[in-house]
Amino acid sequence: MSVYRRQLWVFLMVVTFTAFAAASGDASHQEKTQSADVALRALLASQAADWNRGDIDAFMRGYRNSPETTFAGASGVSRGWQTVLDHYHKNYPDRAAMGHLDFGEIEVTALGNDAALILGRWHLTRDAGPVGGIFTLVARRFPEGWRIIHDHTSTDAAK
Amino acid sequence: MSVYRRQLWVFLMVVTFTAFAAASGDASHQEKTQSADVALRALLASQAADWNRGDIDAFMRGYRNSPETTFAGASGVSRGWQTVLDHYHKNYPDRAAMGHLDFGEIEVTALGNDAALILGRWHLTRDAGPVGGIFTLVARRFPEGWRIIHDHTSTDAAK
Repeated sequence: MSVYRRQLWVFLMVVTFTAFAAASGDASHQEKTQSADVALRALLASQAADWNRGDIDAFMRGYRNSPETTFAGASGVSRGWQTVLDHYHKNYPDRAAMGHLDFGEIEVTALGNDAALILGRWHLTRDAGPVGGIFTLVARRFPEGWRIIHDHTSTDAAK
Repeated sequence: MSVYRRQLWVFLMVVTFTAFAAASGDASHQEKTQSADVALRALLASQAADWNRGDIDAFMRGYRNSPETTFAGASGVSRGWQTVLDHYHKNYPDRAAMGHLDFGEIEVTALGNDAALILGRWHLTRDAGPVGGIFTLVARRFPEGWRIIHDHTSTDAAK
């Protein structure tokens, strides 16, 4: 084998490896985008089931357990997972107060591989009368899975 | 030069190139994260200045000009850049109606290299009385620059 053939062989190995790495990168990207949609719809379905079972602690597992997690609405911005858990326990002392929660019209938009925007509608049936509106969620993929890092929820304006 | 020394030379070139590419990738990532914050604050400052000059068309340039751009609030979800432009022209026919817009308490959170979450507060001073609230924006970096792809705006609840 001549020097040039050996160099050609090294060159071809490098090109093949690079092309293979790029191709598997693409496949993995598609897989990730699909699984973000599937994973986030599953996360929301779990949250609704948790709420409807009266399990606020389980419901809150969908959010990132961090003081940086933010919750926005007409009453301003609440900061921190624990703050919001305490708020829910205080404002929804029993299953009658919690009512029955449904999510619908869910749209997931991938923002790169490890973040996503989720748009949807919420509806709560309860003794005090039905209430609902829309929500914007931003979720990120952590080693432990997808978690909501920001929630902006609006209640429909009275008609 | 022996065959082995030539191969070693090729190998070292590949390693050096790879290390260099990885290092400039990191620098570029930091640069991008910093410039996302700077670019998005500048975008919002431009939008406020455009609004306060009575230039709705310029204000709307901060949003991605796409039928997929979404605007959420207590009145539901509006879809599409043109829809919202038309809405603004109809609802804010003159500068008196537009009033003076201020943004504050802006927080930018990078979501990878090409997307970001922005939280902030808006305040409008106008003849009909002041109004304000909070907003959540999701922006993406396009070849033409950063553009808002989703806006969820709330008006403060009456106190």
